[in-house]
Amino acid sequence: MHDRMEAYVLDLQDRLVTALESLDPSLQKFVRDRWERSDGHGYGISCVLQDGAALEKAGVNVSVISGTLTPGQLKSMRDRRAQTAKLLDDSEQFDFRVAGISVVVHPRNPYAPTAHMNYRRFEVFRQNAPEGEPPVMAWFGGGADLTPAYLFSEDAEHFHQTLKDACDAHDSSYYPRFKTWCDKYFTNIHRGETRGIGGIFFDDLDDKEPEQLFRFAYDAGNAFIRAYVPLVARRMAMPYTQRERDWQLIRRGHYAEFNLVYDRGTKFGLMTPGARIESILMSLPLTARWEYMNEPDPDSPEDRLLRAVRTTTNWTR
Amino acid sequence: MHDRMEAYVLDLQDRLVTALESLDPSLQKFVRDRWERSDGHGYGISCVLQDGAALEKAGVNVSVISGTLTPGQLKSMRDRRAQTAKLLDDSEQFDFRVAGISVVVHPRNPYAPTAHMNYRRFEVFRQNAPEGEPPVMAWFGGGADLTPAYLFSEDAEHFHQTLKDACDAHDSSYYPRFKTWCDKYFTNIHRGETRGIGGIFFDDLDDKEPEQLFRFAYDAGNAFIRAYVPLVARRMAMPYTQRERDWQLIRRGHYAEFNLVYDRGTKFGLMTPGARIESILMSLPLTARWEYMNEPDPDSPEDRLLRAVRTTTNWTR
Repeated sequence: MHDRMEAYVLDLQDRLVTALESLDPSLQKFVRDRWERSDGHGYGISCVLQDGAALEKAGVNVSVISGTLTPGQLKSMRDRRAQTAKLLDDSEQFDFRVAGISVVVHPRNPYAPTAHMNYRRFEVFRQNAPEGEPPVMAWFGGGADLTPAYLFSEDAEHFHQTLKDACDAHDSSYYPRFKTWCDKYFTNIHRGETRGIGGIFFDDLDDKEPEQLFRFAYDAGNAFIRAYVPLVARRMAMPYTQRERDWQLIRRGHYAEFNLVYDRGTKFGLMTPGARIESILMSLPLTARWEYMNEPDPDSPEDRLLRAVRTTTNWTR
Repeated sequence: MHDRMEAYVLDLQDRLVTALESLDPSLQKFVRDRWERSDGHGYGISCVLQDGAALEKAGVNVSVISGTLTPGQLKSMRDRRAQTAKLLDDSEQFDFRVAGISVVVHPRNPYAPTAHMNYRRFEVFRQNAPEGEPPVMAWFGGGADLTPAYLFSEDAEHFHQTLKDACDAHDSSYYPRFKTWCDKYFTNIHRGETRGIGGIFFDDLDDKEPEQLFRFAYDAGNAFIRAYVPLVARRMAMPYTQRERDWQLIRRGHYAEFNLVYDRGTKFGLMTPGARIESILMSLPLTARWEYMNEPDPDSPEDRLLRAVRTTTNWTR
């Protein structure tokens, strides 16, 4: 399953990079970097496009990493900590391997939304377990969410409905659960705002056979391309002024706040000795802005976005 | 002592705002906001200048706050936690009051350094102690540090020497201790870089009579004006190109990282219900930039700055 996930995320990376490159009228290409961990335990492929005509900054990363975890580290990585703790003998160490894809796209046009997507499979083994021994625990995690600076209901509906359809094909409880989880996770608590208008988010998913879960992750990953790329295509040539640009950069400041203050993946990465900082912080926007006491006029388009991130909305049929 | 500290920080705020306003050829003035906590336990005066000709964003905040603390909160605020814990009965609650000034200046010109300064006096009392009862504990904290995007040795020397002279007049051990503390505290651990080229930083200072410590904080606060304002005056009209501007914004990205990921004051503020987020995040730059894999050419001016934040240097006589 690990090998199939690895093959899948590499293929998805390739298709997504191609789809995003095809948007860019300047024909700018992603720069592809392959890196290896200095300890030999893994590699990654980072594809980054920066300062393009359509995309201001986009990163599509695959990483395939293995290593050792203490029970404490393992617990801190799981959403269901208490349940995980019960399964663990505190003196034991574990081997793990993870294959995942992580995507952030910040378009240049303020009307084109930012999006994030990430799917991974995590496997944990008894330390030095013989080849072929099944994992002690294994799960899928991931999701996709949309962060517009300006709200277009039809874009929000298209994004959510496309993800819902992919979820519904596997389990009708997935979309409602994972949408709620997404709204809860991607929250700038100090601002009382969600990061954007949500999507789906899940972690520790192991409620079905791995084969079924893999097919779900597979479909959800593919759905991201058709959920998101057409929205950039639709908005990337809309005329805008400095006012919209400034507002977009202010929203990007809030995006950076979430990633640096709350995001578990970022925090875990920054605290990991030897981690590849450039890949972890690739999610940050090329440019961001913090204005003191910026308050949009009531009923302005900026204010409508604020209202959208201060409530939760049902965007699907 | 609380009242004297309050009067002092208000006066220092006024003098510093006047000094900074006098730099700005556009004659733009700071906007002064007085705010009160909704629970009645304190007020603040925020002075902010944004998008000026010389200063891109500058904030000079005074806050005078009182409230209640659990022993756990009190311990987490003190640098010497173990020593503090011994003094506390875990069932007791405490009243506190604090008067402080907090300053961040981000000039527009990439050759003009960013600076931060902050002095505060904290007093902790038995809950509902009668008027006039001395505090259970009280201390001073604060410091000042410089964050250039380009290194000028003479600026670094002037800044450090001015602070050292202010320290030496009170205790010759202060500057070396507080310089080391500053380098250690203002570190982006994940990047292996200090935020800037340091200055002084101290907390929990109660090793002398309050009167002596107040005079030290008083002199150190005053020294900041002559340590820093002339550096902006000297650099603010230097010609620069987009290259220097981009580098400045990349360094501001690292500044934002420190403040959001590590800074104790910011983290404490963001987690405090009812805190004034706009005042806490006033320290963030107006604009910041995150480029993937930005690596200056060896021996370029940008590289020289990097080398300065990857080592510690003695800038004083």
